[in-house]
Amino acid sequence: MHNLKDSHLESYVAKFNGETPSLVLDVDVVEKNLIRAQAYMASHGIQMRPHIKTHKSIIFAKRQIELGAVGITCQKLGEAEVMADAGISDILVSFPIVGSLKIARLMALARRAYMSVAVDSEEVAAAISKAAHEHKVDLSLLVECDTGGERCGVQSPDAAAQLALKITKMPSVLFKGIMTYPPKGQVQNTAAFLSQAISAMRALGVEPKVISVGGTPDMYRAHELRLTEQGVIHEHRPGTYLFSDRYMVHHNVGGINECALRILATVVSRPTSNRAMIDAGSKTFSSDLMGFSDYGIILEYPDARIEKLSEEHGHVDVSACNKKPIIGEILTIIPNHACAVTNLSDRFLTTSSGNFSNSINVDARGKVT
Amino acid sequence: MHNLKDSHLESYVAKFNGETPSLVLDVDVVEKNLIRAQAYMASHGIQMRPHIKTHKSIIFAKRQIELGAVGITCQKLGEAEVMADAGISDILVSFPIVGSLKIARLMALARRAYMSVAVDSEEVAAAISKAAHEHKVDLSLLVECDTGGERCGVQSPDAAAQLALKITKMPSVLFKGIMTYPPKGQVQNTAAFLSQAISAMRALGVEPKVISVGGTPDMYRAHELRLTEQGVIHEHRPGTYLFSDRYMVHHNVGGINECALRILATVVSRPTSNRAMIDAGSKTFSSDLMGFSDYGIILEYPDARIEKLSEEHGHVDVSACNKKPIIGEILTIIPNHACAVTNLSDRFLTTSSGNFSNSINVDARGKVT
Repeated sequence: MHNLKDSHLESYVAKFNGETPSLVLDVDVVEKNLIRAQAYMASHGIQMRPHIKTHKSIIFAKRQIELGAVGITCQKLGEAEVMADAGISDILVSFPIVGSLKIARLMALARRAYMSVAVDSEEVAAAISKAAHEHKVDLSLLVECDTGGERCGVQSPDAAAQLALKITKMPSVLFKGIMTYPPKGQVQNTAAFLSQAISAMRALGVEPKVISVGGTPDMYRAHELRLTEQGVIHEHRPGTYLFSDRYMVHHNVGGINECALRILATVVSRPTSNRAMIDAGSKTFSSDLMGFSDYGIILEYPDARIEKLSEEHGHVDVSACNKKPIIGEILTIIPNHACAVTNLSDRFLTTSSGNFSNSINVDARGKVT
Repeated sequence: MHNLKDSHLESYVAKFNGETPSLVLDVDVVEKNLIRAQAYMASHGIQMRPHIKTHKSIIFAKRQIELGAVGITCQKLGEAEVMADAGISDILVSFPIVGSLKIARLMALARRAYMSVAVDSEEVAAAISKAAHEHKVDLSLLVECDTGGERCGVQSPDAAAQLALKITKMPSVLFKGIMTYPPKGQVQNTAAFLSQAISAMRALGVEPKVISVGGTPDMYRAHELRLTEQGVIHEHRPGTYLFSDRYMVHHNVGGINECALRILATVVSRPTSNRAMIDAGSKTFSSDLMGFSDYGIILEYPDARIEKLSEEHGHVDVSACNKKPIIGEILTIIPNHACAVTNLSDRFLTTSSGNFSNSINVDARGKVT
């Protein structure tokens, strides 16, 4: 059991005069998380290109840039459009862009922002190159490598080098480097793959400028990759680090005090002595288990388990609690997966110095295309 | 393996000229599903009060009323407000209303619509009664019974009768009857509980007018409950029936041809011979497994398995497929759980007679308060 002592907790619920379920974001904690990450990366010469999928909010993207990020990462063009509209000028889309309508949107983006895109096949790269040539725009491409995450990506360092070489011969696209979303806890294997890919590219006369990795769980081990020593720019794309969540606490990225995002929910029914029902279900928490067997940590009742979610009900087993919650009581819950929670909501309520301050819109909520 | 032959399939993808992922709704199938359900209920003298959580769209709520529904069911006040604004005049909120701000919203709703609310505790009922009295409005209350679903609800027929009796003594609220969300497949147990509750109430001199049950999986067994024979109005609150989904096919509510909601997704990467990556992940499908071990049925590749979801990627195991999908191919997927999918999206694209027609907004998306 993690230490659940939380210095901000009491002020939240006592001062809360809104409705539940609500997403409450402690912006002081967000700021500390942002500064800690930026300072760590800067101290190791690693460039930050945070993934905005976690916050989907213009205000945080701008703050990340202000603190020193070279640009942002988006998963979908719809997110990139929201951010480009807000004036963010350097955007990596770490997802294959497939289909003529999507390529047309990418071209429109490339006219108003410096766009990079991850590719893992010659055909996707060629289609982007052809469109860029026709539209007289330039884009940068990164070769996505599957370093064990088993998502997209070429399967070997040699395949990465071959694709890089092909890109260098395509018009209107610049080969920028390598992008990977590495598997958790496999820092040495990732380093080996990336080193071999750099070598294989150099053997073909192709120079990767940037090696871009991601993922909050291992972000504070990024210096172990030693990519800058290999003469490349090492770039990192963490997403969840600014909000944190139960999964990140489990992976020791920070403690409960570093969890900026909390869900406030109300106990609406106590049908049995061991069951409490709250007014937040899978339409608030998402159904993401992330390897856990329940759906969040209730700070006021650490021995309670959110054992099941209906769409709008949370089923809480309070059998292990000495003191048990009553109807009307508001609970503060650290969700399993911050990114999924954000994407279900239109806004966050914010607190600062323990007071409710304002709200922040989830500007790119639901931008899946 | 269910029969995956789908008469509408080819026309969808061949005529689709939008972007993926998209939710595509065959409104002809929706209409058939609506008519079938209404006709079944009417033939057994059961009143329909469909749950709008599945579609969250004004146009479908109005159509449900037009076809004969006596009113609608909402889980949250935010949904009820959207529907009342659209002119729906008879709304049951099947969720305990707790907290002064929520009660104030309920009072405002009661001024412009006939509102019923489910309650399972004296304190929640008394708070509503007190407010209704102060605001000079009338509301109807139903006693929620836990007939085995283990969500909210009083635990025994006697407890239901005791709460009903207390409500009859409270000002400005009318005791209307019993509401339950019964456990799947337990029709006889549910009937026994409800019959006992009716008898217990009558023994106390309290007459329940309406017995309201819900759930699509057992909806076509509703006549087995024989509640009308007990001199009460039998009301049903199915939600998913108009769209259907993989879970309902599994429970034999209908076949694949009755699944009106499909997700179109594009193959964006083929990293290995056995892996295809699609551009729809948990931010499109939700992470709801609903007892399955994967995330949907791909109609074009019934042997493929969507084995894992990242937030924006679907990981598809195509090892069992003879013919395998290629990059750029668009796939038609029946999701596990329609309600969760709807709530992630702002709109549906619609088809009629095999042609893409229009779009329909998810008006009450994200209304969790």
